[in-house]
Amino acid sequence: MQESSTNTNYREWNIKPTIAANNTTNPIRAIVDNGKYKPNPSKSLIPLSIGDPCVFGNLNVEQSVNQVLKQNIDSMKYNGYPPSIGYEPARNAVAKFVETPTSPLIASDIILASGASGAIEIALSSLLNPGDNILIPKPGFSLYECQSKNKGFELRFYNLLPNKSWEIDITHLRSLIDNKTKAILINNPSNPCGSVYTREHLLDILAVADEFCLPILADEIYCSMTFGETQFIPIASLTSTVPVLAIGGIAKRFLVPGWRLGWIAIHDRNSILGADFKRSIISLSQIILGPNSLIQSILPTILDVNNEGIQKFFKEVNKTLECHSNLTVELLSKVDGLSPIVSHGAMYQMVGIDTKKFKDIDNDVTFMGKLLEEESVFVLPGTVFGLPNFFRIVFCAPEDKLRDAYKRMEDFCQRHKL
Amino acid sequence: MQESSTNTNYREWNIKPTIAANNTTNPIRAIVDNGKYKPNPSKSLIPLSIGDPCVFGNLNVEQSVNQVLKQNIDSMKYNGYPPSIGYEPARNAVAKFVETPTSPLIASDIILASGASGAIEIALSSLLNPGDNILIPKPGFSLYECQSKNKGFELRFYNLLPNKSWEIDITHLRSLIDNKTKAILINNPSNPCGSVYTREHLLDILAVADEFCLPILADEIYCSMTFGETQFIPIASLTSTVPVLAIGGIAKRFLVPGWRLGWIAIHDRNSILGADFKRSIISLSQIILGPNSLIQSILPTILDVNNEGIQKFFKEVNKTLECHSNLTVELLSKVDGLSPIVSHGAMYQMVGIDTKKFKDIDNDVTFMGKLLEEESVFVLPGTVFGLPNFFRIVFCAPEDKLRDAYKRMEDFCQRHKL
Ligand SMILES: Cc1ncc(COP(=O)(O)O)c(C=O)c1O
Ligand SMILES: Cc1ncc(COP(=O)(O)O)c(C=O)c1O
Repeated sequence: MQESSTNTNYREWNIKPTIAANNTTNPIRAIVDNGKYKPNPSKSLIPLSIGDPCVFGNLNVEQSVNQVLKQNIDSMKYNGYPPSIGYEPARNAVAKFVETPTSPLIASDIILASGASGAIEIALSSLLNPGDNILIPKPGFSLYECQSKNKGFELRFYNLLPNKSWEIDITHLRSLIDNKTKAILINNPSNPCGSVYTREHLLDILAVADEFCLPILADEIYCSMTFGETQFIPIASLTSTVPVLAIGGIAKRFLVPGWRLGWIAIHDRNSILGADFKRSIISLSQIILGPNSLIQSILPTILDVNNEGIQKFFKEVNKTLECHSNLTVELLSKVDGLSPIVSHGAMYQMVGIDTKKFKDIDNDVTFMGKLLEEESVFVLPGTVFGLPNFFRIVFCAPEDKLRDAYKRMEDFCQRHKL
Repeated sequence: MQESSTNTNYREWNIKPTIAANNTTNPIRAIVDNGKYKPNPSKSLIPLSIGDPCVFGNLNVEQSVNQVLKQNIDSMKYNGYPPSIGYEPARNAVAKFVETPTSPLIASDIILASGASGAIEIALSSLLNPGDNILIPKPGFSLYECQSKNKGFELRFYNLLPNKSWEIDITHLRSLIDNKTKAILINNPSNPCGSVYTREHLLDILAVADEFCLPILADEIYCSMTFGETQFIPIASLTSTVPVLAIGGIAKRFLVPGWRLGWIAIHDRNSILGADFKRSIISLSQIILGPNSLIQSILPTILDVNNEGIQKFFKEVNKTLECHSNLTVELLSKVDGLSPIVSHGAMYQMVGIDTKKFKDIDNDVTFMGKLLEEESVFVLPGTVFGLPNFFRIVFCAPEDKLRDAYKRMEDFCQRHKL
């Protein structure tokens, strides 16, 4: 009482943003979204910037998915609280969808979460204490940084090699490991690179994990979104010794990022993580009590590998994205000063900028800004992924929009050429 | 390199639950859910334990809500990523739903989140740094403790007074404040008490907040769920000086807790929190990118105060809950050894246990355990809310189930009487 009465005299309103809030910075927001750049009002805006396949309305969820969802709404059986880790049939469906012959899963290996974002948050919190570090890719998806900084985890960026199909620089990766390193995060297929790792490369990564006894956090949200002959291989299928937390979700595969459903699949064949770890991940899921119940309710139908409509839909979406990818490389390879690096999956294309070829473009942020202001084409500068002098294209837009955008880029580069 | 090579020799698998995971304990799980107690297999289970109005199927969402939801699914306009704080029309709808003549709000004062749980998590992270403390009610909803401990925030429990309609012991509240206190959390209407604060009591709380310059985090998820003459008063409507973060959501009001949509309404009439605070709360919303887009999309329709169907639905639900509340008090008042404390809102009833009257029931946890094992009636012991020798009833079950449960309680108490 004494103390609080004394305080009264000194109290005044003084509410400051917390450390966690201050640390939760999104590089996209900081670099791009600051109101500095405006599109050219005389040209229609073509946004190739955000990783959302729904922006243009050309890519839509399969109708049968909506049908099941509406039926389940009518049943009114899915309005209550599911268990915080998700309904058991939903987790069972994810287990069957994600497992491979060499990496079997059951419902209790799955935790549903609010988007892959929510899944990554839980996975990070289950592996690191403040002050620990995690190895993450550069260039890489900015959310890893945003979430880790929020929680006081240290980030160590390993390089991806643009001229080796964005494979990991394994020597660099190894050199970053110390006693505070708690996990290796990989993202395959990759945002922003569109790369898809080979079996050999995945085995190289696993060898490091094995040697240093580090679990792998595998962000595989773009699983099976691959083009041509390229095959997606879940890293968990290649190891029986390294524990893998595989992140997935329906956002990209089903073209419904707004639905916010993701998961962690715990591959722990040697019981290295064990029951304690599962208990801790269940505790963490209780903080916000899991994802939307209605969306959970459709998983047994839409993730069923025998659902032919869905399998056909997956193929068609891949085919469309492959065409867009090919078109992107074809058209932009012809532009002097730009070097697109062939993409094999996901929905992204990285393009190198040869600044020496331009008279007034000295880096990727300038490139992005001027391209938006002059041509109303919006791409993200590589800097927001940690890699300057590249830019990222999301090639989900309809073909005519992509052609229009690439023509404008060509004109733009022509105009700024040295 | 040197260091990591050295480490190689010493590395072995050794993955321990993190501090955050270990601290994220749910008292319900710890005390009740540990498999120690099993219902009597010869009697049907009547669960009056979890705060989910959907358990029995007697309380259902209004049909027009499902209609709008299904229409919006068909439109395929709401599948992409909304802004992380939510669609503007949805936030605008919340602003109109929550504001009062003396506490006006606009869309930019609203942050949507994944359930009230997600909203509380963001609000706590925006107000406290690790080591800071927050004042929370005892008895109170266990999530406050679970989330705060996860983040390293200190909890200071202020007493609610059962014999003063669960009002806050203001003297006790004041005595807990020190320089590390960053907010007062109130929950009105209350889980687990079913109490609803009067204007006078809310003004008393605000006086403390004003004196010590502490913002109020007001969990008002049961807003307007009140019985008879009792009126719910949003605390923000009574102050122009104290910043209030008011938490709400559709879980309880619309009988859809599985849909996971909640919000923070920032009442900051004196601009004490200011633009910095809003920026920080927006950053925090980016960690999991907000709640389900489809559910967001229906808010403009279902939160419209001119939507007569919904208003009628609200009244009917309140009427039903009021009947259940009255029935509960009527039947349990007659039971020797039990003292129900009249509830005025929400869907909860606290009942005191006079252990002196029983021969073999020495506390609330024993009461709960034996009641479940003998009568298959499941209630939560007050201990999980921080208040021993009470138990909590959720009175959402259909009337016949409630009567059956209360009859079984009566028999139970009779049997165990001294
Ligand atoms: C690599 C990667 N992981 C995770 C996410 C987040 O997915 P969700 O929308 O399910 O949270 C994204 C979204 O762009 C992504 O690119
Ligand atoms: C007081 C209180 N606040 C918040 C919540 C969580 O609400 P939601 O389901 O929207 O996360 C509950 C749920 O029981 C509650 O009782």
